[in-house]
Amino acid sequence: MGLDDIEGLEVEEIARKIESMEIRGAAEIARAGAYALKKIGEDFENEDMTDLLEELETCKVRLLSTRPTAVSLENGLRYVMHGVRKADDIEQLKEMISDNYSDFIDNSIRAKSKIAEYGGRRISDDDMVLTHCNSSMALAAIKYAWNNGKNISVIATESRPKKQGYITVEELSKEGIPVTLIVDSAVRAKIKKVDKVYVGADTIASNGAVINKIGTSQVALCADEARVPLTVCAETYKFSRKSTFGELVPIEERDPSEIVDPKKFPGVNISNPVFDATPSEYIDSIITEKGVISPEGAYRIIEEMIR
Amino acid sequence: MGLDDIEGLEVEEIARKIESMEIRGAAEIARAGAYALKKIGEDFENEDMTDLLEELETCKVRLLSTRPTAVSLENGLRYVMHGVRKADDIEQLKEMISDNYSDFIDNSIRAKSKIAEYGGRRISDDDMVLTHCNSSMALAAIKYAWNNGKNISVIATESRPKKQGYITVEELSKEGIPVTLIVDSAVRAKIKKVDKVYVGADTIASNGAVINKIGTSQVALCADEARVPLTVCAETYKFSRKSTFGELVPIEERDPSEIVDPKKFPGVNISNPVFDATPSEYIDSIITEKGVISPEGAYRIIEEMIR
Amino acid sequence: MGLDDIEGLEVEEIARKIESMEIRGAAEIARAGAYALKKIGEDFENEDMTDLLEELETCKVRLLSTRPTAVSLENGLRYVMHGVRKADDIEQLKEMISDNYSDFIDNSIRAKSKIAEYGGRRISDDDMVLTHCNSSMALAAIKYAWNNGKNISVIATESRPKKQGYITVEELSKEGIPVTLIVDSAVRAKIKKVDKVYVGADTIASNGAVINKIGTSQVALCADEARVPLTVCAETYKFSRKSTFGELVPIEERDPSEIVDPKKFPGVNISNPVFDATPSEYIDSIITEKGVISPEGAYRIIEEMIR
Amino acid sequence: MGLDDIEGLEVEEIARKIESMEIRGAAEIARAGAYALKKIGEDFENEDMTDLLEELETCKVRLLSTRPTAVSLENGLRYVMHGVRKADDIEQLKEMISDNYSDFIDNSIRAKSKIAEYGGRRISDDDMVLTHCNSSMALAAIKYAWNNGKNISVIATESRPKKQGYITVEELSKEGIPVTLIVDSAVRAKIKKVDKVYVGADTIASNGAVINKIGTSQVALCADEARVPLTVCAETYKFSRKSTFGELVPIEERDPSEIVDPKKFPGVNISNPVFDATPSEYIDSIITEKGVISPEGAYRIIEEMIR
Amino acid sequence: MGLDDIEGLEVEEIARKIESMEIRGAAEIARAGAYALKKIGEDFENEDMTDLLEELETCKVRLLSTRPTAVSLENGLRYVMHGVRKADDIEQLKEMISDNYSDFIDNSIRAKSKIAEYGGRRISDDDMVLTHCNSSMALAAIKYAWNNGKNISVIATESRPKKQGYITVEELSKEGIPVTLIVDSAVRAKIKKVDKVYVGADTIASNGAVINKIGTSQVALCADEARVPLTVCAETYKFSRKSTFGELVPIEERDPSEIVDPKKFPGVNISNPVFDATPSEYIDSIITEKGVISPEGAYRIIEEMIR
Amino acid sequence: MGLDDIEGLEVEEIARKIESMEIRGAAEIARAGAYALKKIGEDFENEDMTDLLEELETCKVRLLSTRPTAVSLENGLRYVMHGVRKADDIEQLKEMISDNYSDFIDNSIRAKSKIAEYGGRRISDDDMVLTHCNSSMALAAIKYAWNNGKNISVIATESRPKKQGYITVEELSKEGIPVTLIVDSAVRAKIKKVDKVYVGADTIASNGAVINKIGTSQVALCADEARVPLTVCAETYKFSRKSTFGELVPIEERDPSEIVDPKKFPGVNISNPVFDATPSEYIDSIITEKGVISPEGAYRIIEEMIR
Repeated sequence: MGLDDIEGLEVEEIARKIESMEIRGAAEIARAGAYALKKIGEDFENEDMTDLLEELETCKVRLLSTRPTAVSLENGLRYVMHGVRKADDIEQLKEMISDNYSDFIDNSIRAKSKIAEYGGRRISDDDMVLTHCNSSMALAAIKYAWNNGKNISVIATESRPKKQGYITVEELSKEGIPVTLIVDSAVRAKIKKVDKVYVGADTIASNGAVINKIGTSQVALCADEARVPLTVCAETYKFSRKSTFGELVPIEERDPSEIVDPKKFPGVNISNPVFDATPSEYIDSIITEKGVISPEGAYRIIEEMIR
Repeated sequence: MGLDDIEGLEVEEIARKIESMEIRGAAEIARAGAYALKKIGEDFENEDMTDLLEELETCKVRLLSTRPTAVSLENGLRYVMHGVRKADDIEQLKEMISDNYSDFIDNSIRAKSKIAEYGGRRISDDDMVLTHCNSSMALAAIKYAWNNGKNISVIATESRPKKQGYITVEELSKEGIPVTLIVDSAVRAKIKKVDKVYVGADTIASNGAVINKIGTSQVALCADEARVPLTVCAETYKFSRKSTFGELVPIEERDPSEIVDPKKFPGVNISNPVFDATPSEYIDSIITEKGVISPEGAYRIIEEMIR
Repeated sequence: MGLDDIEGLEVEEIARKIESMEIRGAAEIARAGAYALKKIGEDFENEDMTDLLEELETCKVRLLSTRPTAVSLENGLRYVMHGVRKADDIEQLKEMISDNYSDFIDNSIRAKSKIAEYGGRRISDDDMVLTHCNSSMALAAIKYAWNNGKNISVIATESRPKKQGYITVEELSKEGIPVTLIVDSAVRAKIKKVDKVYVGADTIASNGAVINKIGTSQVALCADEARVPLTVCAETYKFSRKSTFGELVPIEERDPSEIVDPKKFPGVNISNPVFDATPSEYIDSIITEKGVISPEGAYRIIEEMIR
Repeated sequence: MGLDDIEGLEVEEIARKIESMEIRGAAEIARAGAYALKKIGEDFENEDMTDLLEELETCKVRLLSTRPTAVSLENGLRYVMHGVRKADDIEQLKEMISDNYSDFIDNSIRAKSKIAEYGGRRISDDDMVLTHCNSSMALAAIKYAWNNGKNISVIATESRPKKQGYITVEELSKEGIPVTLIVDSAVRAKIKKVDKVYVGADTIASNGAVINKIGTSQVALCADEARVPLTVCAETYKFSRKSTFGELVPIEERDPSEIVDPKKFPGVNISNPVFDATPSEYIDSIITEKGVISPEGAYRIIEEMIR
Repeated sequence: MGLDDIEGLEVEEIARKIESMEIRGAAEIARAGAYALKKIGEDFENEDMTDLLEELETCKVRLLSTRPTAVSLENGLRYVMHGVRKADDIEQLKEMISDNYSDFIDNSIRAKSKIAEYGGRRISDDDMVLTHCNSSMALAAIKYAWNNGKNISVIATESRPKKQGYITVEELSKEGIPVTLIVDSAVRAKIKKVDKVYVGADTIASNGAVINKIGTSQVALCADEARVPLTVCAETYKFSRKSTFGELVPIEERDPSEIVDPKKFPGVNISNPVFDATPSEYIDSIITEKGVISPEGAYRIIEEMIR
Repeated sequence: MGLDDIEGLEVEEIARKIESMEIRGAAEIARAGAYALKKIGEDFENEDMTDLLEELETCKVRLLSTRPTAVSLENGLRYVMHGVRKADDIEQLKEMISDNYSDFIDNSIRAKSKIAEYGGRRISDDDMVLTHCNSSMALAAIKYAWNNGKNISVIATESRPKKQGYITVEELSKEGIPVTLIVDSAVRAKIKKVDKVYVGADTIASNGAVINKIGTSQVALCADEARVPLTVCAETYKFSRKSTFGELVPIEERDPSEIVDPKKFPGVNISNPVFDATPSEYIDSIITEKGVISPEGAYRIIEEMIR
């Protein structure tokens, strides 16, 4: 669900769509959150600047509560709020919010296009690429390679429990890219013939660990064992400032019913972690809009954010 | 589906039930195949020994065609047929088949009980055991430990595409054993807290590689990375004679529709390998009815079969 | 032995206490050395600025000779001496020394508190943490976690030959933290149940290698084998500028009698290396007062020092 | 403490000396236990064969209780008792016990000499050998190499808590072999210059795992990391029959006071495991009196015992 | 140089051809040595049995001196001499030698054909196989696969210094098998696309280590890193009895001039080791005429020789 | 072939000498290319600034075509052309070219001397250093250590196909440094006794991968397996800007005849890749003129270039 689809929605509607995963994907969530703040600015009719700031703050808290671990959302909201408390009057405040929003969206779009380009170049003719879940950044890179005449093929995992792999195979197949669907368990059986693994990221920690959809670290381990390089495609706003100050990225547990109806299995515990952490040693490169880096270079990216 | 359920079925019915996986599990298939041969002996009314031998041979070929890679089936059929061509007359032939059948079933049952005992002893109090798919041997060992008063808990993978993990959690939960269901992708996220991995085997090759349900080798890799020992529970009739003579164990591809309805994904290739191979270096021990061995000792077990 | 205990001591007394390891620990040594320079400034009665500079230099050389490999000491002394040769007169010189000293101590104390906070956050509820030797930084992080209500426990190694592990267990036990003492050889036997390893550092090289108490690299290897992340807690003044220019960190050999009375073992060679080097690949994160970094980011920290 | 020293001791005296570790070392314990049975036979004055058998049994139970995990002791006692229940009369019974005892001692001595020879041959001129604890088998091999003119040197670990390394350095130094003592923590710092590691074994499991003095697995890990082959020297009576049937080798915890006086550390837990398990993947070869084998061949050795 | 080419040669001529490597390859050397003994028997004209035995012994010593580390030669000579000292008279002695010789040649030929078959079966359609040096056993397996309709291709290393890779590419190319020549340094660059590595062996030790042409262990390491299984093809007479008794397989250093004319490089040391040792952990399977085994099963093969 | 040898040559002559590898080595190529541009400036007689700029551009294109993958060449040419388009007139343009050239050469020479110093310091007394191919940077560091009185020795690989190892052994032997020549295949057999590996680099990518002479990654793998640290010596102008933007470093295939005369092997494919890529995980440190860094710090070096 992209920006077009949320045009006109109220904050609470956006918040609920994020919670229900109608709006999903780190970039989409960040953009939707940013939009919600902008909309508050646009819709605000009162002249009291303090009121607006308060409403923005309330909105921010509500949005952050939807996916408390989503670094991109937090970074997006911070981007829109950047410097607004220094506004001289409500007009300037509204303008700043609107400008910040536009900048964020522009940067976000430009970032995607840069990542597609940098990531796409690193895919060679005849490469077989494996991808996990449904990362718009990773797919953008894959499509870039295909659209630049490279004869590639893709293996996509099902990605239980939400089966985002089905979206991935449809999306790639629509472009004409040869794609094969496998269950998550078949990665090691297939990886020997794979040339590269491309995945996205939810959050990147300052020590280079990448938090992404459950199963990513398992794919990474299989790739490492077979000497297949793994590339993470992620905008810099997925890098976590807080991780620099020791905050561990919490791993969300979502509802068991995403896996199976718990009522059918009385007495059985069902655990549904959404993400896992891939250590830097299994990652060949992270592709950001600033260029291709080592995962161990993550601190350098965050350092610039903090300054 | 055990022996009781197939009592009275004809060869062709048994063959079809194996093909459709109503009869599944290496031990169950072997026993069912053995039963089919015995039934032919019992039902045969003609007095011509050559005819009976021919019918047995036809039956054997039909049964082998159901799961051409199932070593246990082949070993079971060979067991029943052992020496029968040397029978003096049709009565002796029938008797030999019946006796061989009984021996095979007895051995098979005794093997399971021995494996439960040896494997169960190696599970310690307070252990958390992870298992993949639905192996009657691995579960027998886990239950033995539980029934001997050890306070254990189990993590079971869903095991896509057929989701045999649902049977596993029901089976263990019925015994009162605390059990948690996870998706296949969550193994690496959970393995650090796991003390032991117990799985079954479809086939064991003479170089110690274990062929088992797709995903087993991925679980094994995760376990190895986290220094969690992996134990394979398998009767000796799962050891492959042919692998000694260079036959590679072929990896069956089953119908894509087991994963998803291919019609919904036109243009998308779907690959559904049923098994994968776990190399000996990721296996701590194989538990057979003859005792606990290193996977590298597989040749020794087969050597005795061949002699 | 902290700053309070050395209040009023003369340079030579401080030097000897460092040599005898009465004053020990990288931070303590650095502070004591800085104090010695400050004291010279305070006590100097002559009006000749050149004389004072000379005396400071002599003192610096004497102090550096006590532990020639201690990077923190060198960095501490350089900090106090920073810019002092540009003083206009002796009053300004004395003031600069005094101010630099205060700054260094303040920074050092603030660094410890930041590291405690960042490091403490990364310890989770119910974690079992293993620590080696007696690092004030690592223990500060552990205590921070405990004091913030996390229910943790600690395993501490004896740390032969000087058995600083005894100090560690006393220190933690006094805080009420459940702690278990083991011999250095038992690390691999215990590490499977450990969630995190926290150690300090004597020196950090520009390629990310960490020089610390003998045995640290062995602990790190055991942790790596069992997928237990190892965290190094170290102020930035432990990062070695010289390593950037190719200087190898020399590994001190201390007196054999620290291990055993050599006279009782005539003809036996006794080797007593004080430190070892842990390569970056076995280190998950380094926690400095600037934040959490990858060990491979060490050059970035030093780069800022050099500029 | 060898056989000469226990000549004439009563069963209970021997049992206590094993408990207190005056008699220590797997071979020494086994021989002492065997001797105790023999002595009962010799000293028995009554004519009632059943009484003697009962007394032997009582003695066996008492001896096994001293070190319940010592495989060599169990194997030694079984050797002496082999077949004795089939004796026709008390004279024959006494003779059998005496003969079995002599055979066991002869075999044990011959085994040591074979192991010294096979193990010694595998040490090359100019090799530096590292050894842990005080294994009579490993030292016999080292001395064999030295006595055959090879110019070797040895590094010996202290082996906390009991510091058996002191006995090792004295023993080797007495032979004139250049030997260096280090603390247990310094193994990784020294291993790069080491050519081979030689250790003994307490118990060898059927999957090739070697249970030996705490720290052995840590030494093995360091050796593996640096591509230094590790050799285990062990008589076949250290191979555990029971491990074949799933019995885990329990790891004894000995008294904390072996490490430090617990009263001095109130509130501190002290854990003192005596052994650890080295997995087969870190072992290059096991040298037995039957020859040099892979650890994975352990089952083959036990298989012959069982038959 | 095969048996046909040496027909009629005298012992000394054969010995020299082995020394000069005109006769090379473990099987060829063994056969030539066996032939030399047979020829002595045939040519012997005297009637004195003791004289003949002595001459045979002298011949054996001379032959063993040509390649003191060639296990196959030693095993071949022992085979021919087996039991001959028990001959009743010179006629019987001559007959035994002749019969033993024929048996050895027959076994050797049958072994090759079995290994070709077992090894060939394990090569799959579309496999790319990498081979090092020029092993007749490995090539036999590759040709078997090709001749059984499998569409394979081969990468062959140059194999400096003697460049036996040139013979390999000619031999395979003559069969029509697509083959690519690379320098030894390019193995890691090519291995990712390789499906299997097939090599021969000079000697196999009882702990599963394989001694083969210099560079084999490097190829094995590259294969292991990229999860490409390595198969060793070797007749059982390449397994070393002596290694069971602790004899290390010595690594021959051949003349530096095989690499380069030393006179052109005065003052430069040139080292030319002929073999290296590949540890069992890098070997997937060893294919012998008895079947496919784990390298760790080597002791089992030798055990049967020794009995 | 250094700068002295190309003094006075025309652009086309220089271009051809680079193509034929008469001028070889990353630093030499860069300097020669820079010289060619400078010469054009000097020789230009026309007064039209646009003409000169065009000629420079043409020359640049021609030079880049000689070794399209040589990063140092590209960086050298960019250095000379830096800012020249902003020249006010032709005189200033010529001066800028001349000045830029001089700066580049000075920096290049200073870089070599710094690298020699930093790299040389990290070689210890009694070290045995292994080097591959013929890297002027690596050899400069080795000679620095020797000339500073360190008693070292060197192992040099032959480096097929061009055998640059012969140049290396002559160069080192001339200095009196003890040096041993081995074939490329013997690295693993020798590496255990090696203390450090020093190599050069052709290109360093932003993720820390080092592209260097074929075989380097194989040497690196052997070193890693045996815990021998590998050091790369490279000026910062070998770091690839383009890699930051996703450009893969292409691996040149040179003429098969460098390996062997293809006519002698009709039907045989010959593959002659010139470089391979060593991943950052096998590299301990990269030594640049800016200091010693982790390979993962490569992006930081390039980041400064890009700004």
